[in-house]
Amino acid sequence: MGQTITEKIFSDHCGQSVYADDIVQTDIDMIIGNDITTPLSIKAFRSAGAKALARPDNFCIVMDHFIPAKDIASANQARISRDFVKEFGLKNYFDERDMGIEHALLPEKGLVVSGDVIIGADSHTCTHGALGAFSTGMGSTDLAYAMITGKNWFKVPKSIKVKFIGKPTQHLYGKDLILEVIRQIGVDGALYQALEFCGEGISHLSMDDRFSLCNMAVEAGAKNGIIAADEITKEFLKCTHQANGKLRSEPKYHYSDEDAQYSKILEIDIGKLEPIVAYPFLPSNGKKISEAIKDELKIDQAFIGSCTNGRLSDLKIASEILKGHKVHSDVRLIITPGTQKIYKQAQELGYIDTLIEAGALVSNPTCGACLGGYMGILGDNERCISTTNRNFVGRMGARSSEVYLANSAVVAISAIRGKISDPRK
Amino acid sequence: MGQTITEKIFSDHCGQSVYADDIVQTDIDMIIGNDITTPLSIKAFRSAGAKALARPDNFCIVMDHFIPAKDIASANQARISRDFVKEFGLKNYFDERDMGIEHALLPEKGLVVSGDVIIGADSHTCTHGALGAFSTGMGSTDLAYAMITGKNWFKVPKSIKVKFIGKPTQHLYGKDLILEVIRQIGVDGALYQALEFCGEGISHLSMDDRFSLCNMAVEAGAKNGIIAADEITKEFLKCTHQANGKLRSEPKYHYSDEDAQYSKILEIDIGKLEPIVAYPFLPSNGKKISEAIKDELKIDQAFIGSCTNGRLSDLKIASEILKGHKVHSDVRLIITPGTQKIYKQAQELGYIDTLIEAGALVSNPTCGACLGGYMGILGDNERCISTTNRNFVGRMGARSSEVYLANSAVVAISAIRGKISDPRK
Repeated sequence: MGQTITEKIFSDHCGQSVYADDIVQTDIDMIIGNDITTPLSIKAFRSAGAKALARPDNFCIVMDHFIPAKDIASANQARISRDFVKEFGLKNYFDERDMGIEHALLPEKGLVVSGDVIIGADSHTCTHGALGAFSTGMGSTDLAYAMITGKNWFKVPKSIKVKFIGKPTQHLYGKDLILEVIRQIGVDGALYQALEFCGEGISHLSMDDRFSLCNMAVEAGAKNGIIAADEITKEFLKCTHQANGKLRSEPKYHYSDEDAQYSKILEIDIGKLEPIVAYPFLPSNGKKISEAIKDELKIDQAFIGSCTNGRLSDLKIASEILKGHKVHSDVRLIITPGTQKIYKQAQELGYIDTLIEAGALVSNPTCGACLGGYMGILGDNERCISTTNRNFVGRMGARSSEVYLANSAVVAISAIRGKISDPRK
Repeated sequence: MGQTITEKIFSDHCGQSVYADDIVQTDIDMIIGNDITTPLSIKAFRSAGAKALARPDNFCIVMDHFIPAKDIASANQARISRDFVKEFGLKNYFDERDMGIEHALLPEKGLVVSGDVIIGADSHTCTHGALGAFSTGMGSTDLAYAMITGKNWFKVPKSIKVKFIGKPTQHLYGKDLILEVIRQIGVDGALYQALEFCGEGISHLSMDDRFSLCNMAVEAGAKNGIIAADEITKEFLKCTHQANGKLRSEPKYHYSDEDAQYSKILEIDIGKLEPIVAYPFLPSNGKKISEAIKDELKIDQAFIGSCTNGRLSDLKIASEILKGHKVHSDVRLIITPGTQKIYKQAQELGYIDTLIEAGALVSNPTCGACLGGYMGILGDNERCISTTNRNFVGRMGARSSEVYLANSAVVAISAIRGKISDPRK
């Protein structure tokens, strides 16, 4: 019987053919914790009486949410992870010394590769599916189980095939594709299922766009988002190999069979889409930008960053749009590069200089603003256009504040004009 | 009767000769508020029933403490200043669009010049005395009085003459000079007096060093710190003029008379000093670095930044020391440039790249870490070596944390070695 790429990854890990709804136990290739979830995993790890990690090199801690410490509680919380790293001599630990948002950092470091089974105590762990890996978010206690045993159990998810046809129109990015998918199927449209993105449309997407696309699979309730590797993926892995001197392990490429079973098939012509803005308070509240601009929505803040859209291409887009312009006097534009490497590359390419010159505030890499942590929190009744992933009530600050989700071009042009605007005109 | 430079500035403003202990009312050349003090001034302004500022162009608001908003309360607090700026069409307003720490930003913008009388609702307003101006911190209500009337009253302070002789030894900076002064006279050694820094030693100090020196005058209880303008000051003002197209007004140069009266005269041979570390919990607890290293003080955090030492020369020193080295694995090194301009210059000169390469976290300009605001808060029992100005109990975080004050070279070398170290060996 034909298999989906997700079923094939699990089959490869189980040493036998498995299919949707099978309950399986598999080795985990990479376990990811961050500064706010790892302490909970450590607590579960200790209360289970564990004395060692099954495979320490397959565990990774990224301090990205409230680091550098935003308050005393964050500083004390961070200490728990730091002490654990020392106690067990863990090598995959990233903090101020090599800062990055976990889902931007791990692919960059070559710690996640095609064919992996990856879990993280962070809902946007689905990002890494863009490499052709199975990657999903879990609770901190589930993470502890994997820390101790090196394994975890899964119900192999059913898959929804999302076929993109056509070529992206101007200023259409991975972010718009996923906002359109969520608009069509809703925030629970893919509950416990794989969102498998395929079709010729994918070949027009950079890895940055693909990460952005898979990143928000969870916003449709998906267990994972996944894109089979192609030449672009392989080129990315090759460059990552070169940059780091190695990859964590050899990538394994899997492809869905022609006769694989899908619970649903969506076909979206991206040649007919336009940039989308998701209105408060759900990512599924998408509106075409040509419609959205009619609402004349003035903004107080514009934000470019997060594990969804804080990559080099986002900074490039923003820099191209902002070059020679000034951020509107009523707006603060905050730009948060995803990692130090992105920050450094953007610096070398002159993007940072252009952005600051235009009146943007460029921060250090952090999850900060996206989750209402720090670095650009919204006050009462403030409105923000943001490249982040969630626009729930109070997500970025005050309960009465509003977050509109969009791609980096929409955010950049809106920052200049002071209201939600169309980058195409 | 001979006058001090401080008496001359007041005399010039009053149109008659005034002396120490005279009570005077004078025009204020620049009134400075920040994001946490301005809302209090605005409250006083409103409750006085004021409808206008006496001289709006002589008022300046710099959003530097909790901006970009670290939480909802900060965002709402910021709103008060933003709305006021709009209501009165104020032009001297700086936030995310042109970020900087007030006492680094104002001289850079040419908004404060030699001969000025400057007040700010921030204790380190004494920084600007480095330009040969009278500059002092005041409460927010006092600020409101000046906003409304354009004036304020002062008791002309007595002066203490601090004469620096000799040439600075290796890695001796303005920071060490002021730490030595405070070590000698104590944290109340200059209560309501001017600390007038002079002598040939001054001619060896850059403007950055002079700002750093005057910045901490308040830590000895001084009303103001002041350095008469020389060629270095004039060159700084000339460059500032060029960079901004203008200065706020024409500088006026005043010099103390030979027979001016001083309450005390200190003479310090800087050729015999070495870098100083001020131990918790007072800036007066200075120890020579050669003594301090014997204590083998391991550190958790190293911080370079603040209105005291977040200038280009600090980033240069740090970058030279860190080049080719790595921050110690037990240490997080946080570097906060004082302004966007400093940040950009440091970027062009390759410092930022070197610092990140070494494992430093470079943040956006902010007062954040220094006052325990955000961006590097200390947890329980943590120890930090810092270029900031205060090491009081809990200043940078937990009550049980410790802050050691030092120059940027000491902080940089300590970050590499993991303990308080001597940059000279």
